[in-house]
Amino acid sequence: MNGKLYAIGVGPGASDLVTVRAARILAGLDVLYAPAGRKGGDSLALSIVREYLLPHTEIRTCHFPMNSNGEEKQAVWDEVAQQLQDEVAQGRQVGFITLGDAMLFSTWVFLLARIGWQEWLEIVPGVTSFAAIAARTVLPLAMEQQSMAIMSCTAPEAELEQALQTHDCVVLMKVYNRFTTVSALLARLNLFEHALLMADATLPSEQCWRRLDQIDADQKLPYFSTILVNKQWHTEK
Amino acid sequence: MNGKLYAIGVGPGASDLVTVRAARILAGLDVLYAPAGRKGGDSLALSIVREYLLPHTEIRTCHFPMNSNGEEKQAVWDEVAQQLQDEVAQGRQVGFITLGDAMLFSTWVFLLARIGWQEWLEIVPGVTSFAAIAARTVLPLAMEQQSMAIMSCTAPEAELEQALQTHDCVVLMKVYNRFTTVSALLARLNLFEHALLMADATLPSEQCWRRLDQIDADQKLPYFSTILVNKQWHTEK
Repeated sequence: MNGKLYAIGVGPGASDLVTVRAARILAGLDVLYAPAGRKGGDSLALSIVREYLLPHTEIRTCHFPMNSNGEEKQAVWDEVAQQLQDEVAQGRQVGFITLGDAMLFSTWVFLLARIGWQEWLEIVPGVTSFAAIAARTVLPLAMEQQSMAIMSCTAPEAELEQALQTHDCVVLMKVYNRFTTVSALLARLNLFEHALLMADATLPSEQCWRRLDQIDADQKLPYFSTILVNKQWHTEK
Repeated sequence: MNGKLYAIGVGPGASDLVTVRAARILAGLDVLYAPAGRKGGDSLALSIVREYLLPHTEIRTCHFPMNSNGEEKQAVWDEVAQQLQDEVAQGRQVGFITLGDAMLFSTWVFLLARIGWQEWLEIVPGVTSFAAIAARTVLPLAMEQQSMAIMSCTAPEAELEQALQTHDCVVLMKVYNRFTTVSALLARLNLFEHALLMADATLPSEQCWRRLDQIDADQKLPYFSTILVNKQWHTEK
């Protein structure tokens, strides 16, 4: 059997929001690489897919430093990309899992930049966090001729403001420690009644705030917090 | 058993890109509503999920007129929304399926606008077409501080142009009979080397053009054609 690498988006958090294709592929892997938030820490992506794995699959968690300098990051990406290619060269079925979709705000893309297009590579798309948030909160995304922007709150504030002024629907990802800034921006644009914040969508720890003005400025938000804005709908029930 | 309505995104086209949750729910339905492109015509969404249905499930295809006048559309949405609520009131397990994700550019949202938030309603998110296109073409979407816009080609050209100038990554949906206009816009903005067009992603009829200048202006494109633009990557292999 020829070696193969599967880059798999495992969806927003609930195990049953994995695709049927991903579940089947996961059951056939020789080795699975799973990103962990901290060195030696647990992998949320791994906990999502664990029920689909068979006992023989080797599991390797790998930590990608987020706040380190550029060189350290590059070295880790180089190393993991090389490991994945070496495994494939040995004829193994290799998986790399990533939260949400594999091609959107995903560590996988840094590995892909090193590995490039290959016959032995298959990318399996996944359900994005914002699709899950829209479903859970019953707040639609764009429809008809409307438009939607997906922004990272780490982007410059002027870009966030322009997106909020231009598009009907805006997803603000990576809110985390940028909440105070983003919340003030939404207040200034009079968008509070069209915005909600959800953390850990579809996980047992899921939390939703339909009134952003009731979140304390100094409240520590969960890492996976996202704001969804839709000017065409009201978020307060 | 209490009646329940499931609005289910069935993903971009391949049956195994349905989520595990959707597959399980589909197997337990009393009745399934499936949108069809033409009156009495086949339903692509239905063909995607057929393998998950059990024989006892009643199937109702419904046609939503696209180019008709507003009143005719409203009447159909009113009627189907009422039917779904009647079925739930009778204690049935009811499904409504929709291509891609249930909350993005989806007929379901017109029904939701009529039905509103209900205890007996569950929305099941699905894999979007653009996630599938990124995976199939190995062309990433946004990463890090980059931003992405999802646009309908039926939007005014000035809005499409602004999105293409502002965002790193732009998804242009509903290309269909707007290709000539959109292609000229991409040429003017020098984006041909960062753009590709995919039709029927993950279906047997899937087609991909990595060079948009090789598509004839008078070529009839498949209905489900989408252009993906990423300024940070080159699309030609």
